[in-house]
Amino acid sequence: MSLIAFSDASELAAISSGRYTGNVSAEWTIGGRPNGGYLLAMLGRAAADAGPHEHVIAASAHYLRSPDPASVDIEVEVLRAGRSASQLRARMLQEGQLCVEALFTTSNLDPESKAYWDRGLPTPEIADWEDCIRIPARTPIGVPVAIMEQVECRLDPAILGFASGHPSGDGAVQGWLALPYDETFDPLALLFAADALPPATFAIEVTGWVPTLEFTVYVRALAAPGPVRIWQHAQLIDGQRVDETCFVWDRTGRLVAQSTQLAGIRLG
Amino acid sequence: MSLIAFSDASELAAISSGRYTGNVSAEWTIGGRPNGGYLLAMLGRAAADAGPHEHVIAASAHYLRSPDPASVDIEVEVLRAGRSASQLRARMLQEGQLCVEALFTTSNLDPESKAYWDRGLPTPEIADWEDCIRIPARTPIGVPVAIMEQVECRLDPAILGFASGHPSGDGAVQGWLALPYDETFDPLALLFAADALPPATFAIEVTGWVPTLEFTVYVRALAAPGPVRIWQHAQLIDGQRVDETCFVWDRTGRLVAQSTQLAGIRLG
Repeated sequence: MSLIAFSDASELAAISSGRYTGNVSAEWTIGGRPNGGYLLAMLGRAAADAGPHEHVIAASAHYLRSPDPASVDIEVEVLRAGRSASQLRARMLQEGQLCVEALFTTSNLDPESKAYWDRGLPTPEIADWEDCIRIPARTPIGVPVAIMEQVECRLDPAILGFASGHPSGDGAVQGWLALPYDETFDPLALLFAADALPPATFAIEVTGWVPTLEFTVYVRALAAPGPVRIWQHAQLIDGQRVDETCFVWDRTGRLVAQSTQLAGIRLG
Repeated sequence: MSLIAFSDASELAAISSGRYTGNVSAEWTIGGRPNGGYLLAMLGRAAADAGPHEHVIAASAHYLRSPDPASVDIEVEVLRAGRSASQLRARMLQEGQLCVEALFTTSNLDPESKAYWDRGLPTPEIADWEDCIRIPARTPIGVPVAIMEQVECRLDPAILGFASGHPSGDGAVQGWLALPYDETFDPLALLFAADALPPATFAIEVTGWVPTLEFTVYVRALAAPGPVRIWQHAQLIDGQRVDETCFVWDRTGRLVAQSTQLAGIRLG
């Protein structure tokens, strides 16, 4: 195991206009499968590179197939290059098979902006970084989670019952996330952060793979250096599908990203 | 003004494989601009028709340009036709210009399914249908809203302060929605329902147009006949953008759809 920076794990090489290659790192996987947010960050890197705006502010991905940790091709098309925002489509293929297709809106986030109104945000109480407990690189049911050797994901002790077979039942997980080498979370890393915690459904019942069908992230602000604080909760399990909503705050307490996803689950 | 059923207002004609035309109805507009959920429903109709599965369960749209209430072309590509779910891309163009591009996951919703776990859902108290007040076809700042002559959108009196210049400040709107002729909300109509209420930001400050940048909807179950109950709330205004989250329950109290959107706003 060697530590691979997020910016290296999601690095792309430009092949020609709108075409890139990258390598899905085996070190950034869960049970051998790449994290969906990590794949979205690779697509977002291509979109930000191909378009006229620097930052992804909205990303929506539909997941078709999980790529192997190996080489992938990425194709980007600029749908509209606007003055204040642009829209792009990016696709990840492996051996010619489409794995993920995503739409992006990009813009330039203003480092000087401040929240105008935030009364609608949840205000979960999350233990401090030093009081949270680092997730080991193996799930409660024994699946290896290589990515947890890369990132430092610390969970609030209040929600750790699931690890000993006593889930809280409230469908929420919370804690902190730091990147390897304590890299600052740029907007692409925030796409990953919004999918980095264990499934919130572990706080209901621990199951196997919870494959993401759709994942939407909004990046709301540039994050301060340092780890981010995350609260992720499930709302409804119906028809063997679950939604999860995630909020990411930077170290200063500013909401920097939020997401929603729909995933399959073997419950119900 | 004549009453146009939702299924007629969103009707498409198939031109060839994966190609459709439709007509954006001037009667389904706000200040002359079509509702974003209505446009998504037209795209979803094309996606459900072109693919092997009957129901849209996840839809993600990025909005590039607002089409005029006139003829539009829709192109659909099946990205993956799976056993239990499929993914498709649909695009709406007007006079050759791309207006909306969206990704869909489709499946077959089981009319017999039941919610397995719903403890994570919000439980807003919303007044009964007969105690809610129908929205007039003109906004508080005088913009004509033709669509409110079509649908019957009733707001809870508890949140109506904005109409007289006294917004509640909590960023939430709630009420009920019925379609013309009391048509049952099928999954396509639910895509519209999740964007049908006035902006939740009206409960903060009444502004002009709040243009949607991104809109994601999950359809969670088939709705019972009759009107649906809706709660929509804003969480954060930052950098002249606001997110809004919406929940749609059918008459029996079952959550049938949920959505999130990112929109531009002239505040902050």
